[in-house]
Amino acid sequence: MTDKNIKESKITLVGAGPGDADLITVKAIKALKTADVVLYDALVNEELLEYAPEGAVKVFVGKRSGDHTYSQDAVNKLMVDYAINFGHVVRLKGGDPFVFGRGFEELEFAASFNIPASVIPGISSSIAVAELQNIPVTHRGLSESFWVVTGTISNGKISPDLYDAARSRATVVVLMGINKLAEITEIFKNEGKNKLPVAVIQSGTTVNEQVVIATVDTIVEAAKENKIGSPAIIVLGEVVSLHPKYKLIQNIYDVVAQG
Amino acid sequence: MTDKNIKESKITLVGAGPGDADLITVKAIKALKTADVVLYDALVNEELLEYAPEGAVKVFVGKRSGDHTYSQDAVNKLMVDYAINFGHVVRLKGGDPFVFGRGFEELEFAASFNIPASVIPGISSSIAVAELQNIPVTHRGLSESFWVVTGTISNGKISPDLYDAARSRATVVVLMGINKLAEITEIFKNEGKNKLPVAVIQSGTTVNEQVVIATVDTIVEAAKENKIGSPAIIVLGEVVSLHPKYKLIQNIYDVVAQG
Repeated sequence: MTDKNIKESKITLVGAGPGDADLITVKAIKALKTADVVLYDALVNEELLEYAPEGAVKVFVGKRSGDHTYSQDAVNKLMVDYAINFGHVVRLKGGDPFVFGRGFEELEFAASFNIPASVIPGISSSIAVAELQNIPVTHRGLSESFWVVTGTISNGKISPDLYDAARSRATVVVLMGINKLAEITEIFKNEGKNKLPVAVIQSGTTVNEQVVIATVDTIVEAAKENKIGSPAIIVLGEVVSLHPKYKLIQNIYDVVAQG
Repeated sequence: MTDKNIKESKITLVGAGPGDADLITVKAIKALKTADVVLYDALVNEELLEYAPEGAVKVFVGKRSGDHTYSQDAVNKLMVDYAINFGHVVRLKGGDPFVFGRGFEELEFAASFNIPASVIPGISSSIAVAELQNIPVTHRGLSESFWVVTGTISNGKISPDLYDAARSRATVVVLMGINKLAEITEIFKNEGKNKLPVAVIQSGTTVNEQVVIATVDTIVEAAKENKIGSPAIIVLGEVVSLHPKYKLIQNIYDVVAQG
């Protein structure tokens, strides 16, 4: 065995961005180019695998309905096994590895085996998906902050943080919450925010992108009409009124109000 | 005059990322490669200008203490003038253009002149700077959400949102707040969060990076000792306890408490 066959075990968590393959960073590409193994999630654009060497092992470890799914424990073990046996494992994760990605748990698991591990940030859908619809998470006069919340916590319930977020002046971005859209809007209604503009964006930054603009009162119906499903982000805040579609809606409301 | 000299006016707002030149996206590089003019901010890594064609006009429009500074109005006008006279203007902005970057205002200004304008997201320091210090903004059991607030709003005061953020369970990330660190920690002390872990990271992801880990009670002193200045982000939350330096601090506290 020659030196070049003795590979050093190493794990790099890499953010793949929200979907568009061009929203990957140079740093991520450099990591992929030296990968011996790529473990990738369901929301990762598979075009990105082409940056990895031809001989690299590419393993899909994501969750898709109906498919065999790997638990987080199984992914952790696979990652470490591959690193020990093959060398450099790139763990390619949708969006950013540290935004509800359980990335830190993977770093900790690698550390428990003394395998050097690091993280490369990705473009997070929490900011970029709305942005590419020309909705800014912050805008002078409309929003001085934004609050990113997960729609589903480990017990399957809505995070208590979302109740606080609904009371705040922040732009609220909910990830992984589309299946709880009705419950989420109820929380905002309880704060009297029935007229607050809401955007739901499915498969943002991809060819399958769909956007629905409405208000807290009307978004559930509008999302149903447009058959919006997972993956999707929800943006609740005055900044959504900056979207061109919102002006159309407002005209309809004004007519109804006058009628 | 041949066709190729007739340039179409176009403006692209491009996120340059937090500092490390490799944290730029492929999409951003593609925009830079077709730029006739690049207008860039103070926090942009100047290495990125090399992606622009050699003949492109490169104009620094950032604010640096002591230098001549451009107002937002002046930048807007410059951007439109260059687009009309030169063609494709890339407006290269630190971090992400829509995270306190006034990017949407620039899009609106371009639209008022009927100049096609679009935005390319960047890696936001609000997530990535802490991440590259191995501090995740979210982590099971410690944080189910993160709230990004500006330290300084247009009237020079602290945003009212920060008072609400201090009451929340969210990881709180403050951008452009280092000069108000003492005031910010007072807000958290008023909520009884004296022992909450805090990280201050100056010039994150660059060769000049400095990190200070402490608590709400001790961060002002610690930042002063380490001569931390702008630009810096502040992260307040239990997730900061995951940083290796925090364990050292905690040991010292434990000794003091036992003494």
